[in-house]
Amino acid sequence: MTKRSPDFATMVLILHPWATRQEIDHLTQLIEEKALEWALHPGEVRNQIHVFGNLSQETEASWRTQPGVQQVYGLAKPYKLANKTHRKSNTRIPIGSQQLGSEDLVVIGGPCALESEEQGTTAALMLRDIGLEIMRASAFKPRTSPYSFQGLGVDGLHILSRIRQRTGMLVETEVMDVRDVEIAAELVDVVRIGARNMQNFDLLKEMARVQTPVILKRGASNTIREFLLATEYILQGNPNVILCERGIRSFETAYRNTLDVGAIAVLKQETHLPVIADPSHAAGNKTLVPALSLAAVAAGADGLIVEVHPNPAVALSDGDQSLYPHQFMNLMDDLRKVGAAVGRRVLRHRPARSLSR
Amino acid sequence: MTKRSPDFATMVLILHPWATRQEIDHLTQLIEEKALEWALHPGEVRNQIHVFGNLSQETEASWRTQPGVQQVYGLAKPYKLANKTHRKSNTRIPIGSQQLGSEDLVVIGGPCALESEEQGTTAALMLRDIGLEIMRASAFKPRTSPYSFQGLGVDGLHILSRIRQRTGMLVETEVMDVRDVEIAAELVDVVRIGARNMQNFDLLKEMARVQTPVILKRGASNTIREFLLATEYILQGNPNVILCERGIRSFETAYRNTLDVGAIAVLKQETHLPVIADPSHAAGNKTLVPALSLAAVAAGADGLIVEVHPNPAVALSDGDQSLYPHQFMNLMDDLRKVGAAVGRRVLRHRPARSLSR
Amino acid sequence: MTKRSPDFATMVLILHPWATRQEIDHLTQLIEEKALEWALHPGEVRNQIHVFGNLSQETEASWRTQPGVQQVYGLAKPYKLANKTHRKSNTRIPIGSQQLGSEDLVVIGGPCALESEEQGTTAALMLRDIGLEIMRASAFKPRTSPYSFQGLGVDGLHILSRIRQRTGMLVETEVMDVRDVEIAAELVDVVRIGARNMQNFDLLKEMARVQTPVILKRGASNTIREFLLATEYILQGNPNVILCERGIRSFETAYRNTLDVGAIAVLKQETHLPVIADPSHAAGNKTLVPALSLAAVAAGADGLIVEVHPNPAVALSDGDQSLYPHQFMNLMDDLRKVGAAVGRRVLRHRPARSLSR
Amino acid sequence: MTKRSPDFATMVLILHPWATRQEIDHLTQLIEEKALEWALHPGEVRNQIHVFGNLSQETEASWRTQPGVQQVYGLAKPYKLANKTHRKSNTRIPIGSQQLGSEDLVVIGGPCALESEEQGTTAALMLRDIGLEIMRASAFKPRTSPYSFQGLGVDGLHILSRIRQRTGMLVETEVMDVRDVEIAAELVDVVRIGARNMQNFDLLKEMARVQTPVILKRGASNTIREFLLATEYILQGNPNVILCERGIRSFETAYRNTLDVGAIAVLKQETHLPVIADPSHAAGNKTLVPALSLAAVAAGADGLIVEVHPNPAVALSDGDQSLYPHQFMNLMDDLRKVGAAVGRRVLRHRPARSLSR
Repeated sequence: MTKRSPDFATMVLILHPWATRQEIDHLTQLIEEKALEWALHPGEVRNQIHVFGNLSQETEASWRTQPGVQQVYGLAKPYKLANKTHRKSNTRIPIGSQQLGSEDLVVIGGPCALESEEQGTTAALMLRDIGLEIMRASAFKPRTSPYSFQGLGVDGLHILSRIRQRTGMLVETEVMDVRDVEIAAELVDVVRIGARNMQNFDLLKEMARVQTPVILKRGASNTIREFLLATEYILQGNPNVILCERGIRSFETAYRNTLDVGAIAVLKQETHLPVIADPSHAAGNKTLVPALSLAAVAAGADGLIVEVHPNPAVALSDGDQSLYPHQFMNLMDDLRKVGAAVGRRVLRHRPARSLSR
Repeated sequence: MTKRSPDFATMVLILHPWATRQEIDHLTQLIEEKALEWALHPGEVRNQIHVFGNLSQETEASWRTQPGVQQVYGLAKPYKLANKTHRKSNTRIPIGSQQLGSEDLVVIGGPCALESEEQGTTAALMLRDIGLEIMRASAFKPRTSPYSFQGLGVDGLHILSRIRQRTGMLVETEVMDVRDVEIAAELVDVVRIGARNMQNFDLLKEMARVQTPVILKRGASNTIREFLLATEYILQGNPNVILCERGIRSFETAYRNTLDVGAIAVLKQETHLPVIADPSHAAGNKTLVPALSLAAVAAGADGLIVEVHPNPAVALSDGDQSLYPHQFMNLMDDLRKVGAAVGRRVLRHRPARSLSR
Repeated sequence: MTKRSPDFATMVLILHPWATRQEIDHLTQLIEEKALEWALHPGEVRNQIHVFGNLSQETEASWRTQPGVQQVYGLAKPYKLANKTHRKSNTRIPIGSQQLGSEDLVVIGGPCALESEEQGTTAALMLRDIGLEIMRASAFKPRTSPYSFQGLGVDGLHILSRIRQRTGMLVETEVMDVRDVEIAAELVDVVRIGARNMQNFDLLKEMARVQTPVILKRGASNTIREFLLATEYILQGNPNVILCERGIRSFETAYRNTLDVGAIAVLKQETHLPVIADPSHAAGNKTLVPALSLAAVAAGADGLIVEVHPNPAVALSDGDQSLYPHQFMNLMDDLRKVGAAVGRRVLRHRPARSLSR
Repeated sequence: MTKRSPDFATMVLILHPWATRQEIDHLTQLIEEKALEWALHPGEVRNQIHVFGNLSQETEASWRTQPGVQQVYGLAKPYKLANKTHRKSNTRIPIGSQQLGSEDLVVIGGPCALESEEQGTTAALMLRDIGLEIMRASAFKPRTSPYSFQGLGVDGLHILSRIRQRTGMLVETEVMDVRDVEIAAELVDVVRIGARNMQNFDLLKEMARVQTPVILKRGASNTIREFLLATEYILQGNPNVILCERGIRSFETAYRNTLDVGAIAVLKQETHLPVIADPSHAAGNKTLVPALSLAAVAAGADGLIVEVHPNPAVALSDGDQSLYPHQFMNLMDDLRKVGAAVGRRVLRHRPARSLSR
């Protein structure tokens, strides 16, 4: 077995059954011009050319459109920085006294939207008492309809910052507009890119310019491959990427989205980045949140982001999927049990810690 | 709040924006001829007629096609016998010394296909040693291609029966053909209807004619509602129905199917029937089976059906998703831990029991 | 370029990054024991073994489970008889005076279900006057709920046969139960396998035992590949297979199913068998049927099967998607125009023809 | 039938089977506090409260979370400006000498990406000769991988503007970043929002600030309802919105996406806005583009946006789905025939026209 450079790769060109000798000659010349090696193999229905060498500059499309070519198989993984083979150990991101990506099970809780300084402060104090260290709350709200509550905007970021100072809770919020990335990265502890923006590439590129940890939510209809490729945009400059499975769009209508626990298991095999789950948006209904939370942890999730509201009945958004405080406390108890069963540690009560990041 | 008969239901007819007065009069007459009550309510874009009374004889289609009607909302649940409101307590089905549907976590293990009497006996003895009481093994194989191994057929049923006698293990197998239901029900302990046959209504009707417990697997693209409606066919005569979530078809290709843990949670809310999961067919790859198994149990599954083979490398089918015996033993250990965390009891070692059914 | 037997094929084994030298040696020995050729190619992330020779006995699963193997690419098309490369010319199936699979555009119309001899006769005469030669009408009804109308059963087959004699119309109906195939094949002109039974392999095998033309409807969630593999079961004995695209299950809820016109185009490229479309079941709503019918023909469909009812408002099933006679006549006029634009011929009025098959 | 204000709407609250009298009283009080009317209707399984009045301020979520409520049906259409009931006549948008939204069939052609001034000019002249008036070419490229060609950016916009001046062709291009909307709106004739950005709400809001016609592409996994709601953001300030169906994500892998012709038909029923189709991105393969183009037009599309490249074999992106010039000319001929069959007019050759917008 001859030694080859790490850039060595293989590509298989499946030829049309009616590919002509001239077309095949043209292809092999093209391959040789690119200093690549090739071998022609007759196939049952159609012949194949196997190409070897440094294919990093090649695209499947450029080959698929050559006369005589029917299909192209490029067999190397397209994502590099997120790939487990790229790093020896898993990425660990400190969240308060815990390490996301270690045996710690990190739970982020809070209301869907930040509605007011009072509501946010009440929620933060409630969560602190329950033993959480970080609160979610969206200052900007992506809404399917322009006629729905759109969030407090940049003012909300400043409110979150004040709540952070006053309560000692870390804060997490979503950013939708490239123009808000810098200020958000400065004012909050963790920024989130929502499912609808998973392939908003300009937003991903802005995130590569800051060092704040970023939760990237999987698009409701994006493949695991696309999900990992999206992280590559952020990883160009920011290594603190957290993947979040939040349910995929399927034909089922009994809940909002299908929580893809298989994706959690695959991601833990494929990447060194931490993986969390959002059971609330998958369920779209508070009665399913506990079961989905436990399932995600059993499947290998490093953490959860759960919607809990001091009073869901008056929530301005997603009240139907937000847990009541007592429901959330019961869930934390169950998480400690299931977490322990799979070797995870859940904070038992609020530890003393500095607020410095 | 006036008392009404239990048959009392409501239906909402959404009218076309351009529905004429004559069409509306025609509709209200039709309603009155059927001894139903109605109320006309103007809507923002279109008017509505709300119909009240015993609608058990009405079909949405017959109303949707009336002139002037645009949509029909029939708001009552269409499945009756499977509905939780139909029975006080959950259905419990005895499997060996356990009760499927109770706090017992019932694990069914075994090879995808029965390949020979020797292979089946080896598997049965291995599983008995691990502490299982029931073995899965398909005598009939539904294969996407006619060029794949099709199973041993009826001979396989007799082999399973002999293995049952000799090893004391209970046996579970799939039935695909209406002509095989009677003999299978006689020779094995639990029969299975595969995902592809979930809506093979003639097969469902045959299952209503026997009393053997039936595992009904959810079609890879069937809704929970369709799943519960399919059980109604069997429940007409056979109360021993076990629902099995085995993954749904989605756009994701990193595994075979998307295990729908949300469906497990919804089913436990909606029906009194036991719910199990098949992580092996969802994963299509042994490396994902442990994570999916634990997730299903955490989500509330009453049991699992897992593929394990004495030597997957030589399996005639699904070898890639069958666990090696030592992997299965590790999984059983993890299931005991996670099961305990959610209040489930897993058999620790093989109990003494009679072989009589 | 050396000559090879037509059975010559290629398979690529992608090895684990950590595959050992021993594992690789074991694999190459295994390959040689099977009289296959191989070549080892280092890959960017992982090495590969390319295997050449007669692989018709090999299954991906048996290789994927070998120690050291991570993935298997088997690059040959798995369906043989349906494959265009298998026959020079397209299969043509005579339907009355037309040839399905030629430039003739064959339209099958009729009610969803046969409700009575009177309803069926009325429909047949109406269709004959419009210029059709074959009527659809289901004697057996697959119903999602056991509480819905289940059809007239075998009596219905005899009614269809009498209608056939009396009106001179050919008849088409669905068969669901293996026990009904023989009698149906005898009494009607074309039998149909419904979408839910596309992978009811015992039913497919029974169809291989008769010579009656069979319309095989694509399962609402089956891939084109699975669709073509299902035809292989019938083609083992019966060459008269007609493929029918009837809409796939997607996340969209504005209509019942998504008519997959891309599948029609792909099937016309891949197979020599005739391809028709069922716009009625895709739409689930009569207002969309004309647009879907024209789209299917523009995409290359050889024919259509459309639901039309003398009086949809009183139809026992699918009334909401059945066209009124005048709507169907308008559709036929539009089909003549669009058909002509894509080189298809639509019957202008009923030709004289013998009733003998 | 009493007259009501146009704001009058209806909502149905489905109560839990175990809803208490107190919960029901609480609900009816809440309703009356909001000056809404109500009626209590016992249901088969659960009781219902029907609420009437001006519900424009109400959200389903806020009601679904009230104690005792299990489900909420809000029966009015949520999109207002795009709704057909909102305008008497269809919106018509002038594109060169044609009116998009009239009987004119408007075809936009061109390369996927603008690669250089030379390539763009060559393409523009070629398209002008074929008889087109507007060219597509992306200056900004959304790429799944950061390692793919990312487009020429703002320089590309200036190149397009020069090509526009020199050739007299109108130009269409995609905008991804809110910061580029103003300059793009100034330099090109039609701007496009790609499928991945359909719910990038900040980008939609920016589009409401300009008057340039906007092509909004449907997200590959967005429902028709979400699609129409997204237009509402733009319609707040910009009436020139063009809907573009470009294929939805399904389980099928024989092509890139499933062209949803049913959506085209539904949109033509639901909205007054023009609807076009992008067969190239749906197909992902040039061999399927002609069939999909004809199907879209037969289904009612007002126009098409098709990828055609002077030399696809050297295209920097999507070369595999771009047509060769001669293939595109053949397609135009077929479009004239099928267009005529459905009452559409296709430009026969380039008309004289001023370049002023």
